[in-house]
Amino acid sequence: LGRPKEFEVEDALRCAARAFCAGGYAGTSIRDLEREIGVGRKSLYDTFGDKRDLFLRVLDRFIEAPYPISSRSASLPEIKRMFYGARSLDPADQASLFANVMVEFGVETDEDVALRVKRHLDRLETLFARALERAAGEGQIAPVDVRSTARYLTSSLQGLWVMSRGGTSRGALREIAGVVLSVLRPPTQ
Amino acid sequence: LGRPKEFEVEDALRCAARAFCAGGYAGTSIRDLEREIGVGRKSLYDTFGDKRDLFLRVLDRFIEAPYPISSRSASLPEIKRMFYGARSLDPADQASLFANVMVEFGVETDEDVALRVKRHLDRLETLFARALERAAGEGQIAPVDVRSTARYLTSSLQGLWVMSRGGTSRGALREIAGVVLSVLRPPTQ
Repeated sequence: LGRPKEFEVEDALRCAARAFCAGGYAGTSIRDLEREIGVGRKSLYDTFGDKRDLFLRVLDRFIEAPYPISSRSASLPEIKRMFYGARSLDPADQASLFANVMVEFGVETDEDVALRVKRHLDRLETLFARALERAAGEGQIAPVDVRSTARYLTSSLQGLWVMSRGGTSRGALREIAGVVLSVLRPPTQ
Repeated sequence: LGRPKEFEVEDALRCAARAFCAGGYAGTSIRDLEREIGVGRKSLYDTFGDKRDLFLRVLDRFIEAPYPISSRSASLPEIKRMFYGARSLDPADQASLFANVMVEFGVETDEDVALRVKRHLDRLETLFARALERAAGEGQIAPVDVRSTARYLTSSLQGLWVMSRGGTSRGALREIAGVVLSVLRPPTQ
């Protein structure tokens, strides 16, 4: 097998992400990655380096992943979709990879991982903040303290992911999401 | 070395918990456990069985752990202590072990682990529900939908633990906790 083409690298990263989501970092062996990606160890090492290098590549890819709130015009409906969207509450969804990573690594274990975790949380917070500003500006919600509310939404999303991994039913997750979003009050007329 | 005495078993479980909290299940080797507990492999196997048996024992112990809201008379102040308490927001605190477990295992991987995760979440939810009922009954908060609010508080706590592992500052965590608790409104006079 020669060097994989670019689209194959993308495919491989997707497969690697699936493996890491299911097994965590420590729980995913090179053998698991070979099987999931469908290439041999040598090809894997030649393209990505070792397991940690591959893992960091997967994280880099995920930091750029699009969300409903990534859109420039995102406001209240997109915030809601972050919590009620079909994919958001799926325990197998790869968007929860970072929740995994934070729990597995903690913050002081690995500087390269910690940097990516920070970037990911900062990005979510920034996207939520922008959507909140727009929602308040357009009169969809009462004014809020944008920074603390954006952080709260970021944290709440991690909580829902954990609960979803813990076997909480879809119905219960939607109920929780309803309470989470109740801090966004309708504007007073 | 003979069979450890009862207090030594308790000590060993505490040390094992610390190791599993730091490394996760897959990331903690028998060698890590030997070092952390300070006994040899044979002693470990004789007393606890294999790594998985020891892990389940640690989980069983944690399901019984006391929280501020464990007190029969717990109401709003104890709910607040769950979110602002010195230990609650500590990324190294072992109370977050279950958040770890949920993320690492997901729900379908291991029936014995899943059972314990469910017991843990049910317990937190029940304790929050009882404290909420008392808080509303004593006029500390406006009436709430107890079940969904208790679930929401359980989920929010998982979120804060993840954020805390992710390196979020103590100040930011307190800010988030403030927004979490803002769904508990003062009673209308």
